[in-house]
Amino acid sequence: MIIETVPNFSAGRDQSVIEAIADCFRGREGVKLLDYSADKDHNRSVFTVIGEPEPLKKAVIASVKTALEKIDLTSHQGQHPRMGAVDVIPFIPIKDCDIRDADKLAREVGQAMGELGQPVFLYEKSATSPLRENLADVRRGEFEGLKEKMKSPDWTPDFGPAIPHPTGGATAVGARMPLIAFNVNLGTDKLEIAKEIAKKIRHSSGGFRCIKAMGVMLEDRQIAQVSMNVTDYTQTSLYRVFETIKMEARRYGVSVVGSELIGLSPLRALTDCAEYYLQMENFSMEKVLETRL
Amino acid sequence: MIIETVPNFSAGRDQSVIEAIADCFRGREGVKLLDYSADKDHNRSVFTVIGEPEPLKKAVIASVKTALEKIDLTSHQGQHPRMGAVDVIPFIPIKDCDIRDADKLAREVGQAMGELGQPVFLYEKSATSPLRENLADVRRGEFEGLKEKMKSPDWTPDFGPAIPHPTGGATAVGARMPLIAFNVNLGTDKLEIAKEIAKKIRHSSGGFRCIKAMGVMLEDRQIAQVSMNVTDYTQTSLYRVFETIKMEARRYGVSVVGSELIGLSPLRALTDCAEYYLQMENFSMEKVLETRL
Repeated sequence: MIIETVPNFSAGRDQSVIEAIADCFRGREGVKLLDYSADKDHNRSVFTVIGEPEPLKKAVIASVKTALEKIDLTSHQGQHPRMGAVDVIPFIPIKDCDIRDADKLAREVGQAMGELGQPVFLYEKSATSPLRENLADVRRGEFEGLKEKMKSPDWTPDFGPAIPHPTGGATAVGARMPLIAFNVNLGTDKLEIAKEIAKKIRHSSGGFRCIKAMGVMLEDRQIAQVSMNVTDYTQTSLYRVFETIKMEARRYGVSVVGSELIGLSPLRALTDCAEYYLQMENFSMEKVLETRL
Repeated sequence: MIIETVPNFSAGRDQSVIEAIADCFRGREGVKLLDYSADKDHNRSVFTVIGEPEPLKKAVIASVKTALEKIDLTSHQGQHPRMGAVDVIPFIPIKDCDIRDADKLAREVGQAMGELGQPVFLYEKSATSPLRENLADVRRGEFEGLKEKMKSPDWTPDFGPAIPHPTGGATAVGARMPLIAFNVNLGTDKLEIAKEIAKKIRHSSGGFRCIKAMGVMLEDRQIAQVSMNVTDYTQTSLYRVFETIKMEARRYGVSVVGSELIGLSPLRALTDCAEYYLQMENFSMEKVLETRL
């Protein structure tokens, strides 16, 4: 069973803090640090880690302890919204497991964090109320507004004390599906066309259930791009949104000139496309040689 | 060291024979039966097995004995060309080994089969003459023509008696690279159309370098099928041959109604298709999450 976590920490400038956090994910049996990056403007760092549930849990707890020791939000400034020294910890099912396994791990980590004095709100698929599903709702008011916000019974944490940690704030922890960052490039320099198409395909304005989209301009290439997050590729497939973008672009006489994946994609999101375009009648993941070794 | 074998048996209708063969690959330390399927029209079954060389060899020999006991080619009918009760046994390097290890195993199995009275022609990368590299050349004339064919010094077997086994014919055994069995179904009951298209796409008559193809009739569905082997998908991609079949079918006003993978496909053969159809600009296998586990 392999689960991924992508914890976000409110530390993007002090390299010694970033490395101390990275060390929590290094040299542990059953845990692999795939990637990490820090942003000075955001004053925030993001770690991509995979592992088996138990060792992954121990590594995450170690990183939480390090963050609570070394990050003080009372003096933290940065462009990215944040409410915690450890701001958000998603758990994502990757192999031989499903969303329920990720949810179980989220709750175990949440409970352990509560015992360390850090309030935890379960969010996304782990949310205990619809109010808490969306990270933006949970984080609204940020660290500075947290003391007041937590006075409301709507915002009693799922684990830990009913008031913010004095320097660590609170953390959103939860299970979610793998997210795919997928962009489609248009053969036009008209940003409005990308924006119009984004509006038609995204969930918030009547489009596909699992698509967040916006139009952006690639200044160096002078082409417009539909930039997307696919929040659940098992429900909204890449090929379906890709073909819909082509179809919508046609009304402007615009063609699709390419696409790109940012970061990683689960294998199945890609084999789903091969299966669709090759009109396969009997495909299953069992047919992929590598899954059988 | 993991080697794969995909032996083909001339038994696709009698379930008891198919299961007796499958049993030869079950419950053996160091051997794993990944998949098997039988086709009534072809009257043929295909088994996909991986394992370490020694145990794999023992399992294959057991399956050969079973086939020679239970299959009688003198009364065998089916659409697929065949010359043996065990028709062909390829060995494919999968992990921590190369084509030479597969070749060594092929020769050991060939020798053991010869000692059982079954003539063996080494083919593909194990061939002892250019005449024998291509399975179609080795099999030409099929079971019915084998007695006459083996009178020529060109067709003295590499192992076993110089005349066909009375009910088991002869077998092609050899090492090869991973092969994809890929079939495309046409929206027509005219076998001639599938045959014409097969001719256009296969290497032997001017088509793609790594495609072997023939037209067959799926009697139960009353549709014609282009049945293919892709001998090296890194050179001839599935999407290219699929789109070419669609293009050729159009001249007859015929559409492609589906496709199927028989057995396993390497992951990259499928991601190549996703990459093509989604027009990806920056794809690499590193972007597939599972390759990073």
